[in-house]
Amino acid sequence: MQTHFNPVTPEVLAALRQAVGDKYVKTDEDCLTAYQTDEEGNSHFFQKPEVVVFPGTTEEVAQIVKLANTYVVPITPRAAGTGVACGAIPIYKGIVVELERMNKILTLDAENMYAVCQPGVLTGDLQREAKKYGLLYAGDPSSSDSCQIGGNVANNAGGNKAVRYGTTRHQIYSLQVVTPTGEIVTVGGRLQKCSSGLCLEQLIAGSEGILGIITEITLRLRPLPPYAFNMVCVFTDDTAAFALPNKILKAGINPTSIEYMDREALQMTCKFLDMSMPHVQEGCSYVIVTVETFDEAELDRKMEQLCDLAEQNGSIDEFEADKRIWTLRKQFAEAARNIDKMYQAEDFVVPLDKISAITAQLPELREKYDLYCVTVAHIGDGNIHVLPLNNKGLSPEAWFEKIKEFHRDLFPRVYALGGKMSGEHGIGYKKRDEFARCTSAEELQLIRSIKRAWDPKQIMNPGKLIAVE
Amino acid sequence: MQTHFNPVTPEVLAALRQAVGDKYVKTDEDCLTAYQTDEEGNSHFFQKPEVVVFPGTTEEVAQIVKLANTYVVPITPRAAGTGVACGAIPIYKGIVVELERMNKILTLDAENMYAVCQPGVLTGDLQREAKKYGLLYAGDPSSSDSCQIGGNVANNAGGNKAVRYGTTRHQIYSLQVVTPTGEIVTVGGRLQKCSSGLCLEQLIAGSEGILGIITEITLRLRPLPPYAFNMVCVFTDDTAAFALPNKILKAGINPTSIEYMDREALQMTCKFLDMSMPHVQEGCSYVIVTVETFDEAELDRKMEQLCDLAEQNGSIDEFEADKRIWTLRKQFAEAARNIDKMYQAEDFVVPLDKISAITAQLPELREKYDLYCVTVAHIGDGNIHVLPLNNKGLSPEAWFEKIKEFHRDLFPRVYALGGKMSGEHGIGYKKRDEFARCTSAEELQLIRSIKRAWDPKQIMNPGKLIAVE
Repeated sequence: MQTHFNPVTPEVLAALRQAVGDKYVKTDEDCLTAYQTDEEGNSHFFQKPEVVVFPGTTEEVAQIVKLANTYVVPITPRAAGTGVACGAIPIYKGIVVELERMNKILTLDAENMYAVCQPGVLTGDLQREAKKYGLLYAGDPSSSDSCQIGGNVANNAGGNKAVRYGTTRHQIYSLQVVTPTGEIVTVGGRLQKCSSGLCLEQLIAGSEGILGIITEITLRLRPLPPYAFNMVCVFTDDTAAFALPNKILKAGINPTSIEYMDREALQMTCKFLDMSMPHVQEGCSYVIVTVETFDEAELDRKMEQLCDLAEQNGSIDEFEADKRIWTLRKQFAEAARNIDKMYQAEDFVVPLDKISAITAQLPELREKYDLYCVTVAHIGDGNIHVLPLNNKGLSPEAWFEKIKEFHRDLFPRVYALGGKMSGEHGIGYKKRDEFARCTSAEELQLIRSIKRAWDPKQIMNPGKLIAVE
Repeated sequence: MQTHFNPVTPEVLAALRQAVGDKYVKTDEDCLTAYQTDEEGNSHFFQKPEVVVFPGTTEEVAQIVKLANTYVVPITPRAAGTGVACGAIPIYKGIVVELERMNKILTLDAENMYAVCQPGVLTGDLQREAKKYGLLYAGDPSSSDSCQIGGNVANNAGGNKAVRYGTTRHQIYSLQVVTPTGEIVTVGGRLQKCSSGLCLEQLIAGSEGILGIITEITLRLRPLPPYAFNMVCVFTDDTAAFALPNKILKAGINPTSIEYMDREALQMTCKFLDMSMPHVQEGCSYVIVTVETFDEAELDRKMEQLCDLAEQNGSIDEFEADKRIWTLRKQFAEAARNIDKMYQAEDFVVPLDKISAITAQLPELREKYDLYCVTVAHIGDGNIHVLPLNNKGLSPEAWFEKIKEFHRDLFPRVYALGGKMSGEHGIGYKKRDEFARCTSAEELQLIRSIKRAWDPKQIMNPGKLIAVE
């Protein structure tokens, strides 16, 4: 690719070493190879950086960014690299800024229910630490045991508690950010409401690293409801399954999550985990509803109410499941990877009343593109994970081309229903061109103008979300 | 003021008439005088526009904005004009764009729990319309019977249900906006989660008209809980009163609101309404807790739990109040206005654990600036309304100067505690200079660069939130 960027010269390397210390600047081949991809399995997308730096402080991050501006070298920020949109792949080479050393929970104030985290904190660690104090960190991507808070914020990660608590952006009080020109700024505040200036923390959350590097995050914690049930509602008719969430929400049951697994997903994951679950062999699909309360009587009442609703709406059986149901749900991606490491994780999102309309089109698309697909969904959010698996062993290039064609057909259908192409994975590099195609010229112009204003040299995660100009 | 703006010439007027029709372009003195202020009562801030236009469609708004760009004439967008930060005062004269004709609820989809509104819809009308279908529109400024949705969004209005449901920004699915260059753009979507591009709807919400004119708003509705109580907890010790919200929140009671009225506020408002309430004459303050549930048993349990908590934390009495308690709370501002139409409505916000620390400084400030103050607070949000009343009859200029001095002393104390100067009223023109003083240079730079990028001629609500460059 022809660009305005400069290579990482010995002079740049020397300056980086000066900034963060020799041992935190790596250029050995093993390291560069390790950073050629994130969770992406298709080698078509792989690209090695020229150098990986491991800053230990916000000030060091700021120094790196200033250097990158001076030398016009691209930067790719990275936390755990568990993203699936090629957001952490250094497509223009340059510098990968790996934040894993900044992995401390700086504050966990149980009395006032908040935590201050560095970006490299494992999401699961924060969840567990909060739980010790009877508190909940409500951000809960399925990858919580491998992903990190900084990446969650940059991507506005969703996950399994979004029905009740929202996505990562809804957990944020404030962010400390190194801007694309290397300034350190704190935006937002530990406040329940605010009308003092522009809401920059929400602009930066979900901006996929193109507006700066997040170096500290103040997060809301919540009281942890002590009572919970997981109810599996079993369906033979998916249209009925897809209609259930809205009924649950309207009834005021306030579920923590409503998940869906289709027949193929259930069978594949049960086989992978060597697990047996009711009705799976019969070819049924599941709607899994989790409800949490602060009172046992309330829990019982809601369980009864939910079972009634499910039965009235076409469920053929309901059973209470233990925590293993979440192992099944969360291990789904691993089961897919076990069949095909290049599997494509779609995560489009539609209004709840449009789930049936979009999923009804999937058989046609599967046939047209000769794809084997399994489907799970955060169905309470309208967020559908269709996973085409490359189970016929196409080459990386051929698979890339096939998925490209599939996307060009799928996404306009999603947008026509008022949906968007990503509910929680982000656009990254992988869906960037489709994003430009599906988004209005006026909106793209607003996005580009912010990028230009904040990052005149376009060094910050270039080529993600929008193309380099 | 010397500016780069041009006056509204006969040529501009002719073009405006062409755009929206003769009868919707007004230049008569009565009309201009009516638009010289919003809710502001101090004539120091008054400024007449040169023309008021009343567009009926988004396309007409876009035409007006394009004209204003061509002729470099400032625009001040306005809904109901109930703001208290001089946000709708045309400080550079030019054109006021009054959106009151765009007052339709375009869609109210009860099945899917959302509404599409034009900006001039009265907030109370949307609340009442939703209620007919057993639904709740959760945005609830105290001025709901006079304010309009467009203004609520532009200001990120807060109000009385924010503890449970958040502020206006948390009710937004998507916005149709006319950008400062006159493009029509829709941002956001009717989606429960989204990671597809920058979160422009949250950037625009609360931007006080400096980033565009909001012409259509898609709002979330929620199931309306059928059971409710309002519990008044009576305090003689304010420190104990201020500590109660956090205990309630941690217990998982999930209140809809927690309000506070101090002794002066209670006495003033009871007198104004000719109302008698328990313990008011004894000089007590109130914490009013509203809880809503979908189940009667749950309501009873929470009431018991709340009374126990209140008693353990220094409440001297608790009593259940009927809806009149909300008349008392909401008529407080009218009672203040009755004493002094220039009353200054502070609305700073601090973390919940800092409420005592800031309110403890108020007696000193009151004495130092010889101010008579009454205080109410959305105490569950840390949002404090201290209202200095000009009960000594100072001139508009003298009162303006006094308040300026008071702000210069007060706001740095608020920020030192992690607070901000406005929780729900916005910065507008009134607090703009203090905002610049209290906000970091880096954050201001980010705000200004977005403004510059989107509004190169700075015609859109100039001088609000940030100064014209």
